[in-house]
Amino acid sequence: MKIKNPFFKKKQNINLSIILNKLGKKRISKDIKINNISNLHTASSKDISFMNSLKYLDSLKKSKAKYIICNEAHFNKIKNFCYPIVVKDVLKSVYKITELFFPGSLDDAIDFSVLKPNIKNFKKVKFGHNVLIGEKVKIGNNTLIGHNTIIESNTIIGSNCVIGNNVLIKYSIIGNNVRILDGSIIGKKGFGFFPNIKKNIRYPHIGIVIIEENAEIGCNNTIDRGSLSNTVIGKNTFIDNQVHIAHNVCIGNNCIITGQVGFAGSAKIGNKVYIGGQAGISGHLKIGNNVQIGGGSGVIKNIPDNSKVMGYPAKDIRKFLKDNK
Amino acid sequence: MKIKNPFFKKKQNINLSIILNKLGKKRISKDIKINNISNLHTASSKDISFMNSLKYLDSLKKSKAKYIICNEAHFNKIKNFCYPIVVKDVLKSVYKITELFFPGSLDDAIDFSVLKPNIKNFKKVKFGHNVLIGEKVKIGNNTLIGHNTIIESNTIIGSNCVIGNNVLIKYSIIGNNVRILDGSIIGKKGFGFFPNIKKNIRYPHIGIVIIEENAEIGCNNTIDRGSLSNTVIGKNTFIDNQVHIAHNVCIGNNCIITGQVGFAGSAKIGNKVYIGGQAGISGHLKIGNNVQIGGGSGVIKNIPDNSKVMGYPAKDIRKFLKDNK
Amino acid sequence: MKIKNPFFKKKQNINLSIILNKLGKKRISKDIKINNISNLHTASSKDISFMNSLKYLDSLKKSKAKYIICNEAHFNKIKNFCYPIVVKDVLKSVYKITELFFPGSLDDAIDFSVLKPNIKNFKKVKFGHNVLIGEKVKIGNNTLIGHNTIIESNTIIGSNCVIGNNVLIKYSIIGNNVRILDGSIIGKKGFGFFPNIKKNIRYPHIGIVIIEENAEIGCNNTIDRGSLSNTVIGKNTFIDNQVHIAHNVCIGNNCIITGQVGFAGSAKIGNKVYIGGQAGISGHLKIGNNVQIGGGSGVIKNIPDNSKVMGYPAKDIRKFLKDNK
Repeated sequence: MKIKNPFFKKKQNINLSIILNKLGKKRISKDIKINNISNLHTASSKDISFMNSLKYLDSLKKSKAKYIICNEAHFNKIKNFCYPIVVKDVLKSVYKITELFFPGSLDDAIDFSVLKPNIKNFKKVKFGHNVLIGEKVKIGNNTLIGHNTIIESNTIIGSNCVIGNNVLIKYSIIGNNVRILDGSIIGKKGFGFFPNIKKNIRYPHIGIVIIEENAEIGCNNTIDRGSLSNTVIGKNTFIDNQVHIAHNVCIGNNCIITGQVGFAGSAKIGNKVYIGGQAGISGHLKIGNNVQIGGGSGVIKNIPDNSKVMGYPAKDIRKFLKDNK
Repeated sequence: MKIKNPFFKKKQNINLSIILNKLGKKRISKDIKINNISNLHTASSKDISFMNSLKYLDSLKKSKAKYIICNEAHFNKIKNFCYPIVVKDVLKSVYKITELFFPGSLDDAIDFSVLKPNIKNFKKVKFGHNVLIGEKVKIGNNTLIGHNTIIESNTIIGSNCVIGNNVLIKYSIIGNNVRILDGSIIGKKGFGFFPNIKKNIRYPHIGIVIIEENAEIGCNNTIDRGSLSNTVIGKNTFIDNQVHIAHNVCIGNNCIITGQVGFAGSAKIGNKVYIGGQAGISGHLKIGNNVQIGGGSGVIKNIPDNSKVMGYPAKDIRKFLKDNK
Repeated sequence: MKIKNPFFKKKQNINLSIILNKLGKKRISKDIKINNISNLHTASSKDISFMNSLKYLDSLKKSKAKYIICNEAHFNKIKNFCYPIVVKDVLKSVYKITELFFPGSLDDAIDFSVLKPNIKNFKKVKFGHNVLIGEKVKIGNNTLIGHNTIIESNTIIGSNCVIGNNVLIKYSIIGNNVRILDGSIIGKKGFGFFPNIKKNIRYPHIGIVIIEENAEIGCNNTIDRGSLSNTVIGKNTFIDNQVHIAHNVCIGNNCIITGQVGFAGSAKIGNKVYIGGQAGISGHLKIGNNVQIGGGSGVIKNIPDNSKVMGYPAKDIRKFLKDNK
C-alpha cells in the first residue's frame, strides 16, 4: 500500500465526509481530515484503513487507524477498537477511496506532454528518429533509445540500457544494463475492474513496473503495472517474445521465460525459474525457486521449490510423461 | 451478404458473360446485366445467388434470383425454379464473383492517402504526434488519439473514445466511449484463402469490424474484419492484451476476455461470457450466454448457456477438476 | 556454419593466441593466424574447428582443420589427427570464437544509420510516411512499404511485395511477392544465451531470416533470425497473426500456420503442414510433409509424413478424439 513513486501525486487531507459520500454512506457528526488510505499495519492515526478477513485481527488491535472499512460481519469485532465503516464490498470501496487520493490513476492512456528529446538533458544518450520523451524522464549514460519509441513522463531508465524500436514505456523504473526490445509495451494499467452491467468500473492502478539490472525483455511483450502493489522483473531475468505479464506479477532473479508465456495477475515467481513456451500461470499463485515448467503447461496451483512440472493442469513432469506414454 | 458500409464500393451491373467467364463457364445465348451477388433470401431479380445445401430449398423456392451458383448435385432441384450455374466449388465461386463486384477488397494492406489530421475537421479531437488520418474519417467529440496511430479512410470513431499509441484501425466502426489501447491492429483482412499449390487464392473481405460502446480493447491485439459478414465486439465487453480475434467472430455484451485468448474464424460468443487467459475457441462454434471458460481451455464444440467449462478439450469444470485430482 | 550473407562482416586472420586467450587457455609456443571457425567438414587448413560427439569421427579424419575445440573425453581421439584444444563446454567456446570473428553479431538492437528513403534509389517503390531505410537496402520494383516501417541496413526485399505499417525488418532476405503485415518484427536475434548467475552470456546470431516467394506473414508476428544457421519460411506458406517463430526454425512450402502458434528454436517443418491456432512445436523437432496439427496441440516429439495429430502432448487425432469422448 505504501508506494513511493514519482508517478502518482497523492492528494492530502480529504474530508471524511467526502470519503463517506463516495461510499454512499451518511456523514458522521464530526468531520475530520484524512491523509491517506493504508493497510492496518502501516496506517497512521490520520489514515483510513480496511479489513476484510478475521486473519487481520492482530493487525487491527495494533493499528493506529481510527476508521476502518469493513463488512457487516466484522462490525462487532472492529467497533471495540475503532470506528467501522460498513460496506457491501470492501475491496471495491478501497479502490474507490484510492481513486480519491490518486485522482489521475484511472486516466493514463496517452501522455500528450511527450516531445522530441531535448538533447541538452541527455548528453550521453543516443536517440533514434521520432523518439518522444515525456517530462522529467531520467535516462542513464550510454543508453540507446530506438526509433519511434515513446517514454512517458517521470520514467526512470538506467545506464547502458538498450530500448529498441517502437517501444512504449510508462510508469516504470528500469535498472542498469536492461534491454527492452522492439514493440514491447511496459507499464500500461492492468486489466482490473469490477464488472458492471452498464459500464464496468475501472480500479486505479497506482503501482508501477520495476525492471531490475541486466534483465532482457523481448519483442511485442506486454508488462502491465500494478494496481496497489508493483509489477517486478528481477535481475538478470530474460524474457522472450510475445509474453504477457499482468498487473502485480513479481518474477525473481535469473529466470528464463520463453515465447508466448502468460502470467495472470499477482502471480509470484521465485528465482531461477525456467518456463517453456506458451505455458500459463494462473493468478495469485506462488511458484518457488529453481522450478522448471514445461512448455504448454497450465499451472493452476502453487509449485514448491526445486520442482519440475508439466501438463495442463501442471503436475510432476515424470508423472506427466508416464501418464502420456 | 447485404452489407451497407462506407468502405467498399460495389460495381454496378456486371455482364453475366463476364461472371460466367470468371467461373470458367461458357457464356449463355443472351447476355444480361447482374447487379450484385446475394444470398437466396435477399437477392433481387437482378442479382445472382448461390446454394450449397438442400437445407436452403425453401429459400430457393421463394428467391427472386434467376441465376444460382450450385453443385452438380443440386442441378435438378434448382432448374425447376431458375437457371443453375454448376461449379465444382460453390464457396470459391461466390468469392470470385464477390471480388468482381468489390474490386478493391483484396488489396487493402496500406492506405497511402493518410495524412496529418486537418485540425479544422476535428475541432474537439485531441491528437498525439505523428498521427495519420485517411480520407473521410469521422471522429466524435472529446476523443483522444495517441501518438503514431494510423486511422485509415472511412473509419468512424465515436465520441469520448481513447485510441492509444501505435494503433492501426481500418474498415471499422467504433462506438462511443470505446478504448483501444496501444499497438492493437483493428480491421485487417482475415486469414481466409483457398490453398493452391503455386499461389494461394485470397478471398475478398468486404466485412468490417464493429466495436460497440463502452468496450475496451487492450494492447497488441489483432481483430480481423469479416469476409462476407462483420466481426463484432459487443457493448461493455473488455478485452485484455495479446488477444487474437479472427474474421467474422461475434462477441456479445459484457464479456471479459483475458490475455492471449484466441478466437478462430466465425465463432459466435454470447453475452456475459468470461474467458480465462490463453484459452482458444475453435472456428464456427457457438458459445451461449453466461458461460465461463477456464484459462488454457481449448473449446472444440458448442457450449450451452450458463455453463462453466475447462480443459482441452473443454468439458464441465467440475468434471475437469475431478478428473485431474 | 558457412553463411554467405551481406549482414555480418567477418574478421580475417585472428591470432591463435587471441583465440586461446578468449577460451582461458594458455598460449602455445608458436602463434599463427586463423581465418575462421568452421565445422569439420568445411574447415580449410587455416580454420579452427570443433567436435563434441564421436559421431563426427569420420569427419574428423577427413577434416583439413589443424586445431579442434573439444572435450577432455575426446582428447585422445583427436590428438592423432590434429591439435586438440580442450574446453569444458564446446558449444559455449564455439560461440565465443564466433563472436571474435563476427564482432557485431551480439550488438544488433538498433540500426542508427536508417534514414528517410532516398527516392532516387527506389524509383519503382512506393513508400508510406515516416519510413526509415538503412544503408545498402535493396527493394524490388512495385513493392509497397507502409507507414512507420523500418528496414535496416543490407536487407533485401523482392519485387511486388507488400510490407505493411509499423513493420521492422533486419538481417533478412525477402523473396518476390511476399506480404509482411502490420506490426511484425522480422530478423531480431534469437533467444539464445548461456545462463550465468551474474549476467547471462549472449551467443552471436550470424544467421538471417529468409522468406521465400509468395509467402504471407500476418500481423504482430515475431520471426527471429538464426544463430549459426538461418530461419527460413518456404514458398507460398501463409502465416496468421501473433505467431512466434524462434531462431533456426525452417518451415517448408505451402504451409498454413494459424493464429498464435509458436515454434521453439530449430524446429524443422515439412511442406504442406497445416497447424491450428495456439499449437506449440517444441525445439529441435522434425515435422514431416503433409502433416495436420490440431489447434491447441503441444507437439513434443517428431511427427512423420502424412500424420494428423492433436492434443497435449500431441497424438494421432483419432486417438485424441476417442480418448476425449
